[in-house]
Amino acid sequence: MQDIQSGPSRVPLAIDRVGVKNLTHPLIVRDREQGQQHTVATMDMSVDLPAAFKGTHMSRFLEALGDWTGILDYASFKQLLEDLTIRLQAKRAHLHFSFPYFREQSAPVSKSPALMDYQCSLQGRLEGRDMEMILGVDVPVMTVCPCSLAICDHGAHSQRAMVRIEARFSGLLWIEDLIDIGQQAGSSPVHALLKREDEKFVTDAAFDNAAFVEDVVRNAAQNLAKHPQVHGYKVEVESMESIHNHSAYACIETM
Amino acid sequence: MQDIQSGPSRVPLAIDRVGVKNLTHPLIVRDREQGQQHTVATMDMSVDLPAAFKGTHMSRFLEALGDWTGILDYASFKQLLEDLTIRLQAKRAHLHFSFPYFREQSAPVSKSPALMDYQCSLQGRLEGRDMEMILGVDVPVMTVCPCSLAICDHGAHSQRAMVRIEARFSGLLWIEDLIDIGQQAGSSPVHALLKREDEKFVTDAAFDNAAFVEDVVRNAAQNLAKHPQVHGYKVEVESMESIHNHSAYACIETM
Amino acid sequence: MQDIQSGPSRVPLAIDRVGVKNLTHPLIVRDREQGQQHTVATMDMSVDLPAAFKGTHMSRFLEALGDWTGILDYASFKQLLEDLTIRLQAKRAHLHFSFPYFREQSAPVSKSPALMDYQCSLQGRLEGRDMEMILGVDVPVMTVCPCSLAICDHGAHSQRAMVRIEARFSGLLWIEDLIDIGQQAGSSPVHALLKREDEKFVTDAAFDNAAFVEDVVRNAAQNLAKHPQVHGYKVEVESMESIHNHSAYACIETM
Amino acid sequence: MQDIQSGPSRVPLAIDRVGVKNLTHPLIVRDREQGQQHTVATMDMSVDLPAAFKGTHMSRFLEALGDWTGILDYASFKQLLEDLTIRLQAKRAHLHFSFPYFREQSAPVSKSPALMDYQCSLQGRLEGRDMEMILGVDVPVMTVCPCSLAICDHGAHSQRAMVRIEARFSGLLWIEDLIDIGQQAGSSPVHALLKREDEKFVTDAAFDNAAFVEDVVRNAAQNLAKHPQVHGYKVEVESMESIHNHSAYACIETM
Repeated sequence: MQDIQSGPSRVPLAIDRVGVKNLTHPLIVRDREQGQQHTVATMDMSVDLPAAFKGTHMSRFLEALGDWTGILDYASFKQLLEDLTIRLQAKRAHLHFSFPYFREQSAPVSKSPALMDYQCSLQGRLEGRDMEMILGVDVPVMTVCPCSLAICDHGAHSQRAMVRIEARFSGLLWIEDLIDIGQQAGSSPVHALLKREDEKFVTDAAFDNAAFVEDVVRNAAQNLAKHPQVHGYKVEVESMESIHNHSAYACIETM
Repeated sequence: MQDIQSGPSRVPLAIDRVGVKNLTHPLIVRDREQGQQHTVATMDMSVDLPAAFKGTHMSRFLEALGDWTGILDYASFKQLLEDLTIRLQAKRAHLHFSFPYFREQSAPVSKSPALMDYQCSLQGRLEGRDMEMILGVDVPVMTVCPCSLAICDHGAHSQRAMVRIEARFSGLLWIEDLIDIGQQAGSSPVHALLKREDEKFVTDAAFDNAAFVEDVVRNAAQNLAKHPQVHGYKVEVESMESIHNHSAYACIETM
Repeated sequence: MQDIQSGPSRVPLAIDRVGVKNLTHPLIVRDREQGQQHTVATMDMSVDLPAAFKGTHMSRFLEALGDWTGILDYASFKQLLEDLTIRLQAKRAHLHFSFPYFREQSAPVSKSPALMDYQCSLQGRLEGRDMEMILGVDVPVMTVCPCSLAICDHGAHSQRAMVRIEARFSGLLWIEDLIDIGQQAGSSPVHALLKREDEKFVTDAAFDNAAFVEDVVRNAAQNLAKHPQVHGYKVEVESMESIHNHSAYACIETM
Repeated sequence: MQDIQSGPSRVPLAIDRVGVKNLTHPLIVRDREQGQQHTVATMDMSVDLPAAFKGTHMSRFLEALGDWTGILDYASFKQLLEDLTIRLQAKRAHLHFSFPYFREQSAPVSKSPALMDYQCSLQGRLEGRDMEMILGVDVPVMTVCPCSLAICDHGAHSQRAMVRIEARFSGLLWIEDLIDIGQQAGSSPVHALLKREDEKFVTDAAFDNAAFVEDVVRNAAQNLAKHPQVHGYKVEVESMESIHNHSAYACIETM
């Protein structure tokens, strides 16, 4: 059967990335407390393609994934990237996994446990022996507006805000480290389960710690800059303002 | 050229709705204050198909839309539905338009004007001479939690909540009427533009008017039940809780 | 601490559904081939609320979920619904779980195995001893246009179409049954992994089995009507037409 | 009333971008054929914030927008960016508008006219007197698979693919230029309205011009590189494969 893909390219331009996008696949992720946890990922997989070749061989991405362990850690992620460069005869390979991650969190007073979910991503790029990795976590927090608190007779508007962190790292970086940095940056963490005594605690704590999106983004950036495994970061804060139908937004980026 | 669509159906089942979906098209909408306004709609158009025919003629939906005035009011909407039944030789026709709608709103103290956006929909179903119409509006509001307000030392959590109204109506029902019903149901309306004095006013007013999703859904339902043009409704309230990563939800439906 | 929720309602209207929405949570699902599989669900949980009470107790939904087995089958789903009616002192409870589900599928010629993903949902409603359940599956298929095939010199346009099935059922209804009904309704099933010989097989088979959205919706409806556990259904087909920027759509509903 | 925002920052880090996000607002866009057209935009507006200041003044973004003409062209876009730097006392300002754009397109044989919609974006960044602008257009096309065409007995799989172009430009760059580049890159343009004779034409033409995502991305890149106003580009092609439940993807980037 003809291999059209290996034929010559009519337009001799190198392609930066070619592959498959929006694959849904089960994934097992390393977990600091439990060892590992099951989740479901959306995956993008790609390689470079030299100017001379007409096409890549898309089915090999699926074969590489099928032969992979399915357990995400540093070594296995690198091994999948290497496998792609070999199967596709490529110089560079990229992976982008995006998945929900769960952490048990106790309510602050009642200590009732419940699972919080965090949308995460892991991007990797392998070229020769160099692997670059970027870990991403979206951390929901509560913000209380300092301006509103200063000027209002009683109360102040609060809302849910999302702290979106991406960190270029080397060595071992736990998702939990980025969750902690995100949670400490807002007026208060959010929780899945709060009894009345917990709701009082969280609200009072948040009102003692009012923060603009500008404060949140700076708090997170300061702690990302100090983290020994983090070598570059982007942190975005989007606050779903309770008094508006749009968001307040702030971003600091060193990548 | 062969007309496969008009051929016989292999499986003799009548089809409830067949047509085109997710068309994006400009639309001019009647506006209580300005006369009319320009917006962009996502449109679904369909008709019934008897068991005997293999297929409908999809291009005729586009021809009907192209020949239509593009100005949305009661008469023109009915005329488009009628046109579909004629062009497609159908007993029933359905339309679903969904579009952002803008209303100028003044800030409560500074009176600074700004445009607020509301996601709206209009559904119509024509069968013979009977036309059924359902108008939908998503109204963002602010809610202050009554429980949190009662138990906390200072403050209470607040958040943006969405009041989603669908109303079956006859005669003339203004989008503005449903916006008003939604806004009055929450702790406070939200605004596009608030100066400091407005922010103080809105926050103080909302804290004087704490409301659970249960309160909001009942307030809206009560006013929908009283509206002379409304003959059935569904109202859903989804509150993006600032202390959680999930929503609180309530629904009352009479349709 | 004050229990505001148990206080009287200012507007004495019963609420059809009140609860939590858009919770993300791990889920284990029964699997016909493997016994069970891990996935992640988005969950809505609600109960009715009588006119006399101001509010429900949202944290109890989370407690019920935390105490639940997390393994989805008929008995455990019913048990969670019952638990909600007890904890919330409600007459009715509703659950809506939505989750990706995986099935290993072999390529038609090379027999290469790979995981296909299907977006599924399970809705349940308990009132007294009556439980109503609706299983939903979105089944992607390929469609080849019969009109295009008849009139074109070579080829015909094809595209991905989504067959969205919802089935009210009693007893045991496997997700795999609905996947099979969806796949048989289109011109061809789609696959995650196809080698060249498989791609030839799938394309040739699809071109031997051209189908409009009207054909697909009727094929699926016919088989749903015959299924002994299915007592009502809605089937929608949306075809992402390769010659248009909108979809073709058809729907048959008996629920 | 206290101006908390102008107070000192606790964490002395400069913020790259701070402002408002996800505003929905009407927009009038310059149109090569008609002069101008009405649409609706989603807008992000931001400025930099020096390390010394606690916060920016969010309401001024809305005031700037309210005082703006609302008619998008080179001069007015620059004027809005300049206005933001003045009102917010900033060194840099950013705008990101995203909106559907319509172009009338005639069917190839019947010449029936209909509106095609294209999702577009315009990003601008002003620093001092330097303005950088990036125009983006998503152009849907049809692709016929060259491999499938070579190996199948009859037919070949085809699908809708999206060509996503972003072009850094100077001077005047028409949205229509990027639409043309995108449409010429695929096997065939897609249309809103096709009569039977047009459907035959489009399908036959597409089958005479089979193209992988690799071909499409190279065709578009080649023409972007030649365009006199374009000084850098990113072009991504995502093909919603009709034989798979995932996409094929290719990207060339020079920005």
